[in-house]
Amino acid sequence: MNERKFSVPETIRWGPGGLSALILDQTLLPGLHEEKELSTLDDFIEAIVSLRVRGAPLIGITAAIGLAALARQSAAEGISADRLRERFAGWAEGLANARPTAVNLVWAVRRLRARLEAATGDAGALAAALAAEADAIHEEDRRMCRAIGERAAALLAGGESVITHCNAGSLATGGIGTALAPVYVAAETGRRVRVYADETRPLLQGSRLTAWELSRAGIEVTVLADNMAGSLFASDPPDIAFVGSDRIAANGDVANKIGTYPLAVLAHRHGVPFYVLAPTSTVDLGTRTGAEIPIEHRDPDEVRRGFGPLLAPEEAGVYSPAFDITPHELVAGIVTERGIHRPPYTDSLAAAVRAAEVERRHRERRHRPT
Amino acid sequence: MNERKFSVPETIRWGPGGLSALILDQTLLPGLHEEKELSTLDDFIEAIVSLRVRGAPLIGITAAIGLAALARQSAAEGISADRLRERFAGWAEGLANARPTAVNLVWAVRRLRARLEAATGDAGALAAALAAEADAIHEEDRRMCRAIGERAAALLAGGESVITHCNAGSLATGGIGTALAPVYVAAETGRRVRVYADETRPLLQGSRLTAWELSRAGIEVTVLADNMAGSLFASDPPDIAFVGSDRIAANGDVANKIGTYPLAVLAHRHGVPFYVLAPTSTVDLGTRTGAEIPIEHRDPDEVRRGFGPLLAPEEAGVYSPAFDITPHELVAGIVTERGIHRPPYTDSLAAAVRAAEVERRHRERRHRPT
Repeated sequence: MNERKFSVPETIRWGPGGLSALILDQTLLPGLHEEKELSTLDDFIEAIVSLRVRGAPLIGITAAIGLAALARQSAAEGISADRLRERFAGWAEGLANARPTAVNLVWAVRRLRARLEAATGDAGALAAALAAEADAIHEEDRRMCRAIGERAAALLAGGESVITHCNAGSLATGGIGTALAPVYVAAETGRRVRVYADETRPLLQGSRLTAWELSRAGIEVTVLADNMAGSLFASDPPDIAFVGSDRIAANGDVANKIGTYPLAVLAHRHGVPFYVLAPTSTVDLGTRTGAEIPIEHRDPDEVRRGFGPLLAPEEAGVYSPAFDITPHELVAGIVTERGIHRPPYTDSLAAAVRAAEVERRHRERRHRPT
Repeated sequence: MNERKFSVPETIRWGPGGLSALILDQTLLPGLHEEKELSTLDDFIEAIVSLRVRGAPLIGITAAIGLAALARQSAAEGISADRLRERFAGWAEGLANARPTAVNLVWAVRRLRARLEAATGDAGALAAALAAEADAIHEEDRRMCRAIGERAAALLAGGESVITHCNAGSLATGGIGTALAPVYVAAETGRRVRVYADETRPLLQGSRLTAWELSRAGIEVTVLADNMAGSLFASDPPDIAFVGSDRIAANGDVANKIGTYPLAVLAHRHGVPFYVLAPTSTVDLGTRTGAEIPIEHRDPDEVRRGFGPLLAPEEAGVYSPAFDITPHELVAGIVTERGIHRPPYTDSLAAAVRAAEVERRHRERRHRPT
């Protein structure tokens, strides 16, 4: 399947023999474009914790590929199926806890666990089933990105400007991204779309990643420090705001990269429609509201040291949540691969998640050996 | 006069023989605490443009000391009074245009020009008059800071938390600061005040300067990236917001460091009173509303390169205004050395500016040789 008309960077692929993963190390962008091989459980966890791979969809894919690669390694050692199932439980726990906010991580681990539970045969057969599930998650993600992009492109007319936060582009997924997907889709059809990218402190995923992938694709992008969005909204407001999400509660409250909430507040004040674009795997029906979403706090040195020298005194405290919650009343719509959901979100999101689940089971029954 | 109970850093002083200025080079903080000597007109302009000295009150003082130091150098060359007046016009123009937004710069230059016009005698006498005016501005600034601090301290009760943006502390003035002055005053009387300091991208005056000067004074300070204030307001809101200003329009609209406006919007949404603290010299009655305030745009590399490596692709555009405008309706009060002004601001600010002017003329008549 080659539906990506833009050559977006490959964020993850199997390593030699499917025994490892090769990731694009995103901590090195935009300066260096280098792959890194992940082989051990610690490699995978470290890559997720230190944001070598990041973005809710992509860390789900990474966890899935990691579990499958570890299973293949174990199968190659000649261990029993039972022993592999035992080991899997440990890997799954380690990976699921690598980052607490993004629900896609837990969702991917849960899918691999279900696949393992349903699978039969020796360790090799179990590893093969896990690898097939990881491939399915990766492939579904590509399709979900494309579907989100096509649906959200309808929200853009010609010559429009979009503001986004963090990176919810191809680098955050296995496809053309979520928040940036409609930008790629619109550009493919010759529409001129300009993007304002919040730099997104502390780790600058906006300037380092969003600006890089859009520039690379020939799409006009302007970087601004996060605190400059207010000035932009007041002087030359963008037409629409598109952001991704790490977890969407059942009521439509949205956890996303720190700084999303103030952007939504500004958009609301200036009448700019604020949309959240994410696959249904990001919707967590088990979380009723944003208040229940656990928020990861990051190492103070990410703020204090910036990118090199010490920029705040060691003795100063640091407040550094990785995410914030945007209440659903500030969200004009949530775009999933199944449609554009409008407030009130509860029923519409629940229906979409369930429909996606049913469709996936259907597909599995068709493809799985009986 | 020694009313500073905290030993705040000396931001500027006369160089040897009053022929130059010694500034604390704020671009090197918090890593290095070094003075730099400014001797030529270019030195003074460069120091203001590149933010070695910054903060509206301090750049006014720096321009005043610069004009006086240049006049003393010329007088030492033995030039005529008329020649000195001619040279002064060139220096004044260069300094007044160094940064467009902060009105204190123009205000200080105007005061020195008026003093020169009123002065008589040879070049040495004129230079002495200019130096006396520069000293007066510096000394008045110390008193204004103290008065602002005492008035605004009344807005703080015990154990309170303050959020601030950029640095409107001692490093921005010749005294104990503007926005931070009530924090120092409260701490002097044994009250425990905690400060949240927005790091303030792109040049991090919050983490580099505010956190440094408060830590140095033993006041508890917590740094956060600008985009984290929304999360803080939603989870554990500070009791009050204090910021400085670079220019206040006649209607109470406030120009201040980029990011002030979004902070005011968040404070308003969360019911946190938002105060602007600045001397009457920052109020520009000739500017009717914020829309008339010229906004300086800065070098894109301040955003792109952050502090060292390239963090955004060269081909990406950059939007980098140095200031934004906070509309007066988001401001709970403006604290000047003459009182706490409440909305509507127009009459109250105009009265304060005129009263300050009358008082200054009075003092001048008392002190100036007849």
